[in-house]
Amino acid sequence: MKQSANQAVNSVAVVGLGLIGGSFARDIRSSGFAGRIIGVDNNPAHAARARELRLVDDIATLADAVALADLIIVAVPVDVAERLLPRVLDGIGADQTVTDVCSTKETLLKAVRQHPRRERFVAGHPMAGTEHSGPDAALEGLFRDKVGIICNREESAPAAVALVEQLYEALGMRIEYLDGSRHDMHVAFVSHVSHAISYALALTVLEKERDERQIFNLASGGFSSTARLAKSSAAMWTPIFLANRDNVLSVLDTYLEKLGELRTAIADNDSQSLNALISAANDIRRVLQ
Amino acid sequence: MKQSANQAVNSVAVVGLGLIGGSFARDIRSSGFAGRIIGVDNNPAHAARARELRLVDDIATLADAVALADLIIVAVPVDVAERLLPRVLDGIGADQTVTDVCSTKETLLKAVRQHPRRERFVAGHPMAGTEHSGPDAALEGLFRDKVGIICNREESAPAAVALVEQLYEALGMRIEYLDGSRHDMHVAFVSHVSHAISYALALTVLEKERDERQIFNLASGGFSSTARLAKSSAAMWTPIFLANRDNVLSVLDTYLEKLGELRTAIADNDSQSLNALISAANDIRRVLQ
Repeated sequence: MKQSANQAVNSVAVVGLGLIGGSFARDIRSSGFAGRIIGVDNNPAHAARARELRLVDDIATLADAVALADLIIVAVPVDVAERLLPRVLDGIGADQTVTDVCSTKETLLKAVRQHPRRERFVAGHPMAGTEHSGPDAALEGLFRDKVGIICNREESAPAAVALVEQLYEALGMRIEYLDGSRHDMHVAFVSHVSHAISYALALTVLEKERDERQIFNLASGGFSSTARLAKSSAAMWTPIFLANRDNVLSVLDTYLEKLGELRTAIADNDSQSLNALISAANDIRRVLQ
Repeated sequence: MKQSANQAVNSVAVVGLGLIGGSFARDIRSSGFAGRIIGVDNNPAHAARARELRLVDDIATLADAVALADLIIVAVPVDVAERLLPRVLDGIGADQTVTDVCSTKETLLKAVRQHPRRERFVAGHPMAGTEHSGPDAALEGLFRDKVGIICNREESAPAAVALVEQLYEALGMRIEYLDGSRHDMHVAFVSHVSHAISYALALTVLEKERDERQIFNLASGGFSSTARLAKSSAAMWTPIFLANRDNVLSVLDTYLEKLGELRTAIADNDSQSLNALISAANDIRRVLQ
């Protein structure tokens, strides 16, 4: 097999060939990071489609992929990862590395804390995505210039961390290191609650739509920007909210308080307070380019 | 003065040279709809900047512009428009036409209902915008393929309606006709509540930021999509919420109920209900491309 100058490993296994796993596969191929990409998916249609799209070279069972690959990337919803990860670690040797891509880290870190191969696992969170899902949603360059977070680095073997760092760099990510619990709190703020409020908005408009022939012109006016995230799959997001339950509830409660303040100012016709709240919110211009 | 084949009127006055007024001026010029564009702004810096950007040919006082222009476009926040519009109608003759661009229509329609020149006013809402403001935010082509709503058409003179229709078409808008009260209810759903929830999200994250050195990576993870609208100016949005108070409160209450259902499912670790709610929200894919 011809070896690329950038080749870091002979083979990578991608477990879960959806938006994130498929996008990893695309960039691993184009960067030449691995000689061979093995795909695993428990949905035969997704596996076949990933093969058809040439995201992967071969489809294998989880056991075969774990036996073969130098690096195993677990890209499944977090509840599935909690069950899968200990099994994957059961199957690897001392030189193989396992990483994941999940949006919450604490429940996963807990699931493998006592595992004899724990140090071959690197907890990762490439912070990129879209509202679409499945192998057809896989995008080349999805991770470029995004942040890739590695959690609890000190619990992993330096060589395993180095390999995942090399992968993130090959995909163009900027690496940050965080403690798992701080990570989960941060993503509740910057991602999970955004999704919750988008789902609620979609439900609000869809309920209205039952009574009205059509809700016109959803594309302008701001709705589409806020409701876009509500397309994000239930299979991925249900377990995220539950795995990060305490942080999400805490941020949601602050959020409900703020929305309540806006509501009160509107209900009271209190132009001055409303203006002050909106002006304070406008300060987001400072941090959001 | 050279007359373009598309020229509908000799002169247009744009009152308020911000995002919407400035964008109108740009497209009026490029479409050749008017021979001359007169700008009015009570902020001298905005007026000077609009002149510098060549959005308008001249700057005039409101009285002069109203005396001169065939068509007067009032593009100011809705509370200012409520005070300004009767004065503008006081100053026009029987062949001049006035239109506005405000996001809420009922309070404006009420402000001019008994005016002797009422039928020279066409209540309009070009449904387009960005989160930016001021003359520098003016964009060419902002209205192309957007919906332009004309409210209570039957209260306006046919010739006045025809001129505004001609303007909307020159700017590439698709025209819809709505009763003012239905309009205001619809925009509460598709625009106003999206802004309210975005402001609340910005306030939530900014409060957190006071305690944390930095909230990392706001650009990915979904936050920026939902919080983008929170940059929208307080001067424009405070009066919108108050002018459309009853509709906004009613939609907000439905929204709070939906968000409450999501919160309860998360708090109860109720994976089945949470999945059902998110799956129902996913149905927004059907109406939102």
